[in-house]
Amino acid sequence: MAQINDNYLKLRASYLFTEIARRVKTFQAEHPAARIIRLGIGDVTQPLAPAVIRALHAAVDEMASVETFRGYGPEPGYEFLTELIAASDYGERGVRMSADEIFVSDGGKSDSANIQEIFAADGVVAVMDPVYPVYADSNVMAGRAGAPDDAGRYSAFVYLPCTADNGFQPALPSRHVDLIYLCYPNNPTGAVMTREALARWIDYARRERAVILYDAAYEAYVREPGVPRSIYEVEGAREVAIEFRSFSKTAGFTGTRCAFTVVPKELQGRSASGEAVSLNALWLRRQSTKFNGVPYIVQQAAAAVYTEEGRRQVRGQIDYYMDNARIIRAGVEAVGLTTYGGRNAPYIWVRTPRGLGSWEFFDTLLNEAHVVGTPGAGFGPSGEGYLRLTAFGRRDQTEEAVDRIKQRLAL
Amino acid sequence: MAQINDNYLKLRASYLFTEIARRVKTFQAEHPAARIIRLGIGDVTQPLAPAVIRALHAAVDEMASVETFRGYGPEPGYEFLTELIAASDYGERGVRMSADEIFVSDGGKSDSANIQEIFAADGVVAVMDPVYPVYADSNVMAGRAGAPDDAGRYSAFVYLPCTADNGFQPALPSRHVDLIYLCYPNNPTGAVMTREALARWIDYARRERAVILYDAAYEAYVREPGVPRSIYEVEGAREVAIEFRSFSKTAGFTGTRCAFTVVPKELQGRSASGEAVSLNALWLRRQSTKFNGVPYIVQQAAAAVYTEEGRRQVRGQIDYYMDNARIIRAGVEAVGLTTYGGRNAPYIWVRTPRGLGSWEFFDTLLNEAHVVGTPGAGFGPSGEGYLRLTAFGRRDQTEEAVDRIKQRLAL
Repeated sequence: MAQINDNYLKLRASYLFTEIARRVKTFQAEHPAARIIRLGIGDVTQPLAPAVIRALHAAVDEMASVETFRGYGPEPGYEFLTELIAASDYGERGVRMSADEIFVSDGGKSDSANIQEIFAADGVVAVMDPVYPVYADSNVMAGRAGAPDDAGRYSAFVYLPCTADNGFQPALPSRHVDLIYLCYPNNPTGAVMTREALARWIDYARRERAVILYDAAYEAYVREPGVPRSIYEVEGAREVAIEFRSFSKTAGFTGTRCAFTVVPKELQGRSASGEAVSLNALWLRRQSTKFNGVPYIVQQAAAAVYTEEGRRQVRGQIDYYMDNARIIRAGVEAVGLTTYGGRNAPYIWVRTPRGLGSWEFFDTLLNEAHVVGTPGAGFGPSGEGYLRLTAFGRRDQTEEAVDRIKQRLAL
Repeated sequence: MAQINDNYLKLRASYLFTEIARRVKTFQAEHPAARIIRLGIGDVTQPLAPAVIRALHAAVDEMASVETFRGYGPEPGYEFLTELIAASDYGERGVRMSADEIFVSDGGKSDSANIQEIFAADGVVAVMDPVYPVYADSNVMAGRAGAPDDAGRYSAFVYLPCTADNGFQPALPSRHVDLIYLCYPNNPTGAVMTREALARWIDYARRERAVILYDAAYEAYVREPGVPRSIYEVEGAREVAIEFRSFSKTAGFTGTRCAFTVVPKELQGRSASGEAVSLNALWLRRQSTKFNGVPYIVQQAAAAVYTEEGRRQVRGQIDYYMDNARIIRAGVEAVGLTTYGGRNAPYIWVRTPRGLGSWEFFDTLLNEAHVVGTPGAGFGPSGEGYLRLTAFGRRDQTEEAVDRIKQRLAL
């Protein structure tokens, strides 16, 4: 038996969603008539926009004919898409970006999990707490985590607690770190980071020669005009930050799979011998060697998101989900609960009442309202005392969930 | 500047295809009237089969409606596809395989590059020479390669030379190895491995407790009845082998992106403390953490390959390419060259004449016949003295390339 990567054994079993599934299944078995509404998982429910569907059909027809068939494409994505992204997501917002700084991929999860590969194995990693588990798990697998304690914290990670006490804005690390994972608008708390706060992180990264790995998967949900939608809207970010974006939550591509990562040319790492090395070149090498590009038809679908019609339709979907967020927030607050997020993000972070634990409140919600949330503790120790609700449901179900919470939840 | 993964600096620049591109560009600039025919790159040219196109359109329509829209799917693939694969690719050939041993992915390149992650960082890797570069490069990046020498060999790899002298059948390693990359039908040599030879490798792996990483991306091109299309057709393979398959070369999916990896439940590694660990469970964990599945529409396209109509159409495409292979072989042999492969594989491995080097013969072919091949030396030192031609071109171009070789090549 070949020896395995022992770091995998340090991963906590992914208790969160399996435990949720177990409890829901048990409840349903005991209450067969209950119609359970799921506001737990961050998956979209609206169909692909008509402009995207039309582009898909057209691209499929191209694949049917020998003259227009496409085989292998360029690993970092077709220029028709990378140029659109550079011009639309960045240029239109006053941010300089060139097409060869954009790397199209099959998902933000893949990119945010794979990015650590281009860095040294002994780098110090900072993660927010609570956190999207992929940032932590991919570094556990790569051996940067140290040993886990009973609360699920790893000895070698630097945790950045985000709670109501600090307005979900993590303090700068009190020690040196090499890699910093930030996610804004935040999953799971729904918080955003101001330009000034981002500038402080950029300063820190410059000072410590650290790299910020900035997950902006939910940028399309930002409503307040002053809130940055990209870290590159803030001065100096091109020298210190890699940004992850996705069509999953912007255009309903969770089952269609397209995302991109931005690695500016200014961004450099250093080799063991002290030489400067372009991270753009390293990531290109990683993607060219280990990835073969996104399906042509899917890249055409993504390009359609940038047409005038596509933009209008996709904006309509985001409005729809943000109306859900407003409905959830208002309903949950009406029964006396405190909520955070949901204003510039599709997640509502609910404070559990009466000091209930995350899982206790999860059970209360399931038993009384037949509504499934996600216990905050599942995202990390600092998520204890919170529960995440998502705005990605269908309107009728979201409204019914809120009605039930209002009518049945005895707090 | 954060410290980078220094192993990346040990990668040779990917000279092969950039150097080919440079020489072709220079030639074209000096001979603007020359119509160059490319038989170098292993990319398909036939459009997707009508059954696949129809399935794609139908799946796109499903994505357009709220009732049938699909968001996140299961990371290892939808059961409608994994069950079809298990039953068709394996069950019909008498091989026992269950759906949860199949992991659908975006490509054989991704899988064969990523698989090494689940193994210990200090394992000893054996690769064929010449070799598909991804097996080697992904292990260089992971730190298993040692230092490169001038010929491009890494000190820590065990190379398995495959030349005409041994019938392109590598000898068993004379020392212990942990991971063995085998590819049959072979890219680039076009060779196949007999059942008896595979049995010897399986015996070796059992004895040494090694894992065989078996790339069967070209299995659909096997014509001779006795030649195994899967390593699992040989007794004992379920305990020692992981198999990579792809729709790229089987059904023209190079630009549509779908493949799968098979990790049998019997297959085990061991932890540092000596415990047995399921490699199926480790790969599931890897894929669940770092990958979010293949687009629903693409999985439906792949499923259509298994319909009666899809099978017939795809078989027609493979026949088409294999007719190209026959035309190339006959033409090249007619001018007195020695060829290998091309009988159970879409690659023809041509011995260079008069002791010419790979690159010299490449230049001769380009200058005299305006045909682009791939110099064998680009696949490793043992590829020196050979040139690869591919059968994936269009018929008219393939025939013209052969005519030019016959008429213009002065040997």
